[in-house]
Amino acid sequence: MLTPYVTVDADVLDANLRSMAERAAARGLALRPHAKTHKSPEIARRQLALGATGLTVATVSEAEVFRDAGDVFIAYPIWPSPEQTARLRALTGQVNLRVGVDSAESAEALGRAVPGLEVLVEVDSGHHRSGVAPEAAGAVAVAADKAGLTVRGVFTFPGHAYGPGRQSLAVADESAALSEAAAALTAHGLDASVRSGGSTPTAGLAGGTLTEMRPGVYVFGDAQQVELGTCGWDQVALTVTATVVSRSGQRFIVDAGSKVLGADQQAWATGGGRLLDCPEARITALSEHHATVVLPDGHDVPSLGERLRVVPNHVCATVNLADELIVVTGGEVVDRWPVTARGANT
Amino acid sequence: MLTPYVTVDADVLDANLRSMAERAAARGLALRPHAKTHKSPEIARRQLALGATGLTVATVSEAEVFRDAGDVFIAYPIWPSPEQTARLRALTGQVNLRVGVDSAESAEALGRAVPGLEVLVEVDSGHHRSGVAPEAAGAVAVAADKAGLTVRGVFTFPGHAYGPGRQSLAVADESAALSEAAAALTAHGLDASVRSGGSTPTAGLAGGTLTEMRPGVYVFGDAQQVELGTCGWDQVALTVTATVVSRSGQRFIVDAGSKVLGADQQAWATGGGRLLDCPEARITALSEHHATVVLPDGHDVPSLGERLRVVPNHVCATVNLADELIVVTGGEVVDRWPVTARGANT
Repeated sequence: MLTPYVTVDADVLDANLRSMAERAAARGLALRPHAKTHKSPEIARRQLALGATGLTVATVSEAEVFRDAGDVFIAYPIWPSPEQTARLRALTGQVNLRVGVDSAESAEALGRAVPGLEVLVEVDSGHHRSGVAPEAAGAVAVAADKAGLTVRGVFTFPGHAYGPGRQSLAVADESAALSEAAAALTAHGLDASVRSGGSTPTAGLAGGTLTEMRPGVYVFGDAQQVELGTCGWDQVALTVTATVVSRSGQRFIVDAGSKVLGADQQAWATGGGRLLDCPEARITALSEHHATVVLPDGHDVPSLGERLRVVPNHVCATVNLADELIVVTGGEVVDRWPVTARGANT
Repeated sequence: MLTPYVTVDADVLDANLRSMAERAAARGLALRPHAKTHKSPEIARRQLALGATGLTVATVSEAEVFRDAGDVFIAYPIWPSPEQTARLRALTGQVNLRVGVDSAESAEALGRAVPGLEVLVEVDSGHHRSGVAPEAAGAVAVAADKAGLTVRGVFTFPGHAYGPGRQSLAVADESAALSEAAAALTAHGLDASVRSGGSTPTAGLAGGTLTEMRPGVYVFGDAQQVELGTCGWDQVALTVTATVVSRSGQRFIVDAGSKVLGADQQAWATGGGRLLDCPEARITALSEHHATVVLPDGHDVPSLGERLRVVPNHVCATVNLADELIVVTGGEVVDRWPVTARGANT
């Protein structure tokens, strides 16, 4: 096979899916995995078979791809332009649809666009992206209710968990923000029965006020999760197979760059990804088609032409750059899954 | 149109193409633009019509897409696996093909795989990626010649020009490295008539020993080039149109994130991209579908639903995430160009 290519180990994947399903069940939480990570109907099917209550997606396009799931939450503050309105209306006839809302103005526009649409109010629990402050959630919910939307609760993304040692703090923030927001809805006589949060780094700690969690990355794992300590090397299901094309001293180049791996690199990352079979190596630079790898002195540098498995920093970016996933079991290729929702950004 | 989408202003594009063609002609340099940036046969056709001597590409797949250019240089140290060998042999019958080589071992393998193939020896001029030290270029060239390859000269990528104030130094390094390497080839009686370098940040300074330059990004410009001072706002031809979906104080969110823009962000960048119509704004964070934008106090925050043009940091990544480019002239959509070489990574 020509390198670089993206491989999924089906055994590791299935173990990851089972493990998260069991974790959610043990905590009494609904599991609504985020399909943005895998973008693959085959993996969605497995998640649902293991008890997921539905899927989370980020865009209307993704909701369209995953409509067969039957129950889809677009965890995003959708603005209902005329084109989006038409698509949302079509979807409501095909799937149990729920979307995010984070302002009275959006709620009014959504209510005019898609009367009766189910919404969760997005709360900012510390990531400071979209979402309202917990104390403002009541006003948004009231506006949504007045606009004719069906308020079902609140959600947040504790994205500030993405840093070493930050998970416990983020989980506490998430729980406090959702509790306060849900109480505000209840005080206005509105339904707050859904309190949705969670992410792969916080999934092991989730609890408190949550009723639902939405992890995405756990299906594959990635170098970020390994470096955060929220996943082991044996839980990494997706790698990019790459060929050594150049070498000089302890430095060598493989042919998987940012156009395959993605360029995501948090300030705390050790480099541009990792090598599954050589944890000591560091990817010191990524160009579009080069990963520059450095080995400590004393480690044998691989030969030209040798193939290595690269673990991307952020697997969601890697999948979105691929047309298909090569599925292996015991090292043998057993299937190819299309990345059906690749580029589904609208 | 549904946002986010990628727009190319054809007038700005054409001005950029003409300007670089004139610059190369004025300096007596062959212009071999890097097609990795645009991945579009329509733009390649325009480059060739304006006098480009051929194209540069990064992969064999890209060479296949651009074979109609007639003359293609794969500026990459290709390792000839059996599958690559078959493709390279097929290409040599279809196009004037040249590839990079940076070791005696690769040269021997390439010579066995594709006898007679034209090669340029890759030299490391300071970027420390692939390429041999200038003083080692002679030995690689001799090995290539002995292996039955056709040595035509040397090339380098002065990637260390990608930093504020580094362009002059990188150009001096490039010129010195290519001079030394070419002299080594000549001393062994080998052809060093091609001395190929250059990049968009160094194109304005290129000269010295160079016979050919290979800029890529100049066709579109991007936020990196603006922040390096190597392109003006009026030379930015490609933007991503995005919708304001959330706002809070001086902060707002648009629906173009890293899955559309790419996640490239050099340490010296001011953020995750820029807004074409508001240079004072800063993109303080990029998620997959959110760009978090902050405006200075006193600047009016755009309304929910308003559409803005985002300039990506690194346009090559943006193009590789798109299926098509929406072509506009005077604000009117006049065409759609497919990104034919999107994902052509092998």
